[in-house]
Amino acid sequence: MTRKINIAVIGTGRMGSVHTRNLARLVPEANLVAVCDIRLDVAQNVADELGIERVVQDYHELLADKNIEAILIATSTDTHAFILKDIAASGKHIFCEKPLALDLESIDDALQVVEKSGVKLQVGFCRRFDKSFRRVREIVASGEIGRPCILHITNRDPVPPSAEYARVSGGMFLDMTIHDFDMARFQVGEIEEVYAIGDVLVAPQLKEANDVDTNIVTLRFANGAMGVIDNSRQAVYGYDQRLEVFCSAGVAMAGNEAENTVVKGNESGYNSARPPYFFMQRYAECYVAEVREFLQCVRDDMSPSITGQDGRMAVVLGHAAWKSLRENRPVRVGAGSPRPK
Amino acid sequence: MTRKINIAVIGTGRMGSVHTRNLARLVPEANLVAVCDIRLDVAQNVADELGIERVVQDYHELLADKNIEAILIATSTDTHAFILKDIAASGKHIFCEKPLALDLESIDDALQVVEKSGVKLQVGFCRRFDKSFRRVREIVASGEIGRPCILHITNRDPVPPSAEYARVSGGMFLDMTIHDFDMARFQVGEIEEVYAIGDVLVAPQLKEANDVDTNIVTLRFANGAMGVIDNSRQAVYGYDQRLEVFCSAGVAMAGNEAENTVVKGNESGYNSARPPYFFMQRYAECYVAEVREFLQCVRDDMSPSITGQDGRMAVVLGHAAWKSLRENRPVRVGAGSPRPK
Amino acid sequence: MTRKINIAVIGTGRMGSVHTRNLARLVPEANLVAVCDIRLDVAQNVADELGIERVVQDYHELLADKNIEAILIATSTDTHAFILKDIAASGKHIFCEKPLALDLESIDDALQVVEKSGVKLQVGFCRRFDKSFRRVREIVASGEIGRPCILHITNRDPVPPSAEYARVSGGMFLDMTIHDFDMARFQVGEIEEVYAIGDVLVAPQLKEANDVDTNIVTLRFANGAMGVIDNSRQAVYGYDQRLEVFCSAGVAMAGNEAENTVVKGNESGYNSARPPYFFMQRYAECYVAEVREFLQCVRDDMSPSITGQDGRMAVVLGHAAWKSLRENRPVRVGAGSPRPK
Amino acid sequence: MTRKINIAVIGTGRMGSVHTRNLARLVPEANLVAVCDIRLDVAQNVADELGIERVVQDYHELLADKNIEAILIATSTDTHAFILKDIAASGKHIFCEKPLALDLESIDDALQVVEKSGVKLQVGFCRRFDKSFRRVREIVASGEIGRPCILHITNRDPVPPSAEYARVSGGMFLDMTIHDFDMARFQVGEIEEVYAIGDVLVAPQLKEANDVDTNIVTLRFANGAMGVIDNSRQAVYGYDQRLEVFCSAGVAMAGNEAENTVVKGNESGYNSARPPYFFMQRYAECYVAEVREFLQCVRDDMSPSITGQDGRMAVVLGHAAWKSLRENRPVRVGAGSPRPK
Repeated sequence: MTRKINIAVIGTGRMGSVHTRNLARLVPEANLVAVCDIRLDVAQNVADELGIERVVQDYHELLADKNIEAILIATSTDTHAFILKDIAASGKHIFCEKPLALDLESIDDALQVVEKSGVKLQVGFCRRFDKSFRRVREIVASGEIGRPCILHITNRDPVPPSAEYARVSGGMFLDMTIHDFDMARFQVGEIEEVYAIGDVLVAPQLKEANDVDTNIVTLRFANGAMGVIDNSRQAVYGYDQRLEVFCSAGVAMAGNEAENTVVKGNESGYNSARPPYFFMQRYAECYVAEVREFLQCVRDDMSPSITGQDGRMAVVLGHAAWKSLRENRPVRVGAGSPRPK
Repeated sequence: MTRKINIAVIGTGRMGSVHTRNLARLVPEANLVAVCDIRLDVAQNVADELGIERVVQDYHELLADKNIEAILIATSTDTHAFILKDIAASGKHIFCEKPLALDLESIDDALQVVEKSGVKLQVGFCRRFDKSFRRVREIVASGEIGRPCILHITNRDPVPPSAEYARVSGGMFLDMTIHDFDMARFQVGEIEEVYAIGDVLVAPQLKEANDVDTNIVTLRFANGAMGVIDNSRQAVYGYDQRLEVFCSAGVAMAGNEAENTVVKGNESGYNSARPPYFFMQRYAECYVAEVREFLQCVRDDMSPSITGQDGRMAVVLGHAAWKSLRENRPVRVGAGSPRPK
Repeated sequence: MTRKINIAVIGTGRMGSVHTRNLARLVPEANLVAVCDIRLDVAQNVADELGIERVVQDYHELLADKNIEAILIATSTDTHAFILKDIAASGKHIFCEKPLALDLESIDDALQVVEKSGVKLQVGFCRRFDKSFRRVREIVASGEIGRPCILHITNRDPVPPSAEYARVSGGMFLDMTIHDFDMARFQVGEIEEVYAIGDVLVAPQLKEANDVDTNIVTLRFANGAMGVIDNSRQAVYGYDQRLEVFCSAGVAMAGNEAENTVVKGNESGYNSARPPYFFMQRYAECYVAEVREFLQCVRDDMSPSITGQDGRMAVVLGHAAWKSLRENRPVRVGAGSPRPK
Repeated sequence: MTRKINIAVIGTGRMGSVHTRNLARLVPEANLVAVCDIRLDVAQNVADELGIERVVQDYHELLADKNIEAILIATSTDTHAFILKDIAASGKHIFCEKPLALDLESIDDALQVVEKSGVKLQVGFCRRFDKSFRRVREIVASGEIGRPCILHITNRDPVPPSAEYARVSGGMFLDMTIHDFDMARFQVGEIEEVYAIGDVLVAPQLKEANDVDTNIVTLRFANGAMGVIDNSRQAVYGYDQRLEVFCSAGVAMAGNEAENTVVKGNESGYNSARPPYFFMQRYAECYVAEVREFLQCVRDDMSPSITGQDGRMAVVLGHAAWKSLRENRPVRVGAGSPRPK
């Protein structure tokens, strides 16, 4: 059997507990040796459930452990950058949830430490591991349907967040559209200009948070293609996740998955099932796949496919979208944006 | 412009008026010169609507008219055979609605006259002209998906008929399943044995008529393939018309058409439109296409693709299904059934 | 039977001959009395095919005929405005193909004459009569799925036009997107701002014509909703015509129609049919329906649902899109745009 | 946390290793304490992979262990009955893979021991746990679409088995159709009569084994409904698993799942993905769900929903189908078939 990587998880909240369960049960490449959370009881509960022996409250304890080769960061966004730097300095490989940080200064600072340290860093853009989105990319990248002309991403949540959440999340473009910016880059390539419109149409509480709940972002790609992202915080029929890449010689589209395949027919026509409820259900397989790739890269000394620079660009684009929205004009994302050395 | 064929219609009831309107408006190969109905006012109404000059009550008047080259019979089933013989004797070409007759003696009698006279006869199995069913046949006949193994036809009406209708129609197998017997032959070939089960499950009035409203007929084809037809008189979601030919190297399936392409999503899932209501809507284009083929055959002296023998075989199979149902055993349809000379 | 309206057609080219055939065969409200084309032989051919007695080369002859109540204009776009004025002055009702003209001055000039004359004018935005788009509007307008938030229209032609055609057509926004501007107004309401990007990605010949072949137009509606139109001149899989109105309590989507319902399965997966090839096939029923509504309005003295102002606004939006593209900024379409008195 | 059940697995071949992995990783109700296989190395490999401490070659060792409460039997079919009797005699609860045995004598013998012992027995008809088939049953059982009229099950394997496999499997009706017999009973109720046709159309090697590779089985249910099962051993487009229950007031259909949701469009039309390859992929979730239900029944002293009698009836129906095929006549399955006391 191939070597397993000793890994620990920092942050065992919503996403962290998903990763922890996956590492314990479904990731054959992992040997999960410890979990950490500043709320010790939260970490302890997950550890008990899964039979994990080591539970710590202070992540520095993990850094000192020579036995640990890799760490997964799933803490709150505002702590990512400094934890990331500490881990990189300790020489351990890092899987970090998105976004790296909300401000570019913190990101650039952290990425410089990572670069110097030489550790591997993978950012948690899990949707790149979705089998349908990957299949679209495979078709497009193969060239069999020609050059990309129009990208369309539909990303709509089932229920709006609270104002509190919105306030700390960086707002819709940095919290939600950020996935689409990364997906757009994954499918078509670098983005040179964005134009964003948005408003509060369904969730009045977001007004107080200076956030929006509905938006459309138009994209210009460096290769000449165009794109559009449409987002909403309230799709009452469920988590709407679609993608279309229209090319000069064809089209590739990823539709929604469904809770089941049943069609019921009666006087009202045909009724079919909603999409899986939300990201936990929809992208469940992706959370496993992304961590497996990361650990395979650690094991085989390969570079992860989603880099710190990818994590950074998605934040750059999120900020550009906010600027475009506020100034109601297209905003260039280019020469000025690359990470300073 | 190519020559138009002078044609008359006998019987301007439900199906006859459809054919009459088509001939007047949508069939460029036709010159509709007269309509006939024993209910003169019924014929007159259609003639007025379409500007048809000649209206007669007695079809014999049409037979004497040298100017008329072809006649379409859309009278009640019990009159088909003798009208058919009269027209054939007069030397005019014939398009006859299905079924040719309910009893084989009348059919054989009529077909002998047709054969002697040398006139062309096409039977109105309109579904053979449906673009989707034709496309399935094209795929299957091309051999690209291998040899046929399993045929499945789903044919379900939206509402059951009255007991009166059932009594004169020959019952479900001769009135409704007859289309599927013909379609089965069209798609896969000759049928050697049938096994039928059926019952009254939804329309109690059919019990008095000794009819059934739900049935399943299993088929064995001469080429080794198997088939199944399922029929119901009451599909509350609409006229259900599906076909599947499963082959050794693939499958070809024709699904239902829909009233529109709209999908509505809400908390209850996705809702989509019903199929077109009934045969008048579903097969509207087929009624035009079948008559056009007939007139092209007349014009160019070709043989129609749906022959008297096809009309006869569908009735043979309908009788075999009734026999199978009554005796609860498979019934051979073979050497004994071909038309006597 | 209800009264038929005496109507004539001016222009019997591509669209004109479609309307002429429909009026002759499929529009029971019409009595088609004459056709007119400056290419007399073109008009004569259609007239012969359909048995229309009167054929003229100079449309002024029709204006003098007291017997003619309504005229359908299907000439080249540059002639619409002056013919429209002449007919209005003669007191006959008018069905005019889109666009009314390429310049607003001509449109405003013509609409003033129409208004003074009191004749009815309907503009040929046929897609409003598509059964699926109408069903979407019905759902949205009913309020059952809440307020509109995001409109998405996909409109892609199968093959690009020639540079010659592009030069006289007003370019992509006035020739093609114009339908989508009208559909957007039909589905969601007035548009206040547009932002357009576009480029030549697939049809190099359009560069010479200063046209584009691919575009994305973002819309802001007066009611707060947002929209996006994506267009291409080259969808190799066929004429792609989709529409989605995402609302606060649901979604309504009109998908593509298909040439047939057949699904073929083999080692490569499932294959299903392309959409109908182009507008002539896709919107065939709409061409009949729009003219029927027009004639019913004439007969019953009702106002057509698609007015001169609708025709004008689509052109206003087309010009705004060109301006936005050229200046790379959002362009307001509002107080300044309404038609001057 | 609720109590976990100590369970062991006998037979760690194809299905046994699936169950073993599930019990170790994905079944929170289980405490997997031992695995057993007469091929000790096979059991040892799985145990090593999953960190299971106890591995035995002779299952009698497990029977003596007071600590073990339940045993899962996944050995070859010919050993099910005697192992089942031994376990029942030892007082442990049993989950047994289907079929219980190929001959009714062995089944009746074993079920008598189970009944006397009072242990719980669940039979592994995993498809009853499929979310789509369950949803169909829920709709049908609710009565909202009326009474069942026509059941249609399509069950087609991607590739035919070897002649060796066919010989020991009981043939197509006892190895493959058995699932459909159970599903038919699950969806609609008891079956009173079967009529089966079948042949070797695609896999000549099955002729030597006196087996068939294609069949159609017609069913009559005690409640008056009718049904049809169609089976093939070779669906080259993948594992075809569909189900339709047509009722007096509607229809419920479970379609195929798909490997992904991608649709590719090009000149050839639209292409979409195949179904998941075979039962291991298609029913992966069911294997977990069935064992969880079994263990919950053990834990909470409830009766499993799939009983020994269900396991028996599926075999009864398989034998009836073989008899029907050989005698080419419908075969009653009724008063004579119930299990002797």
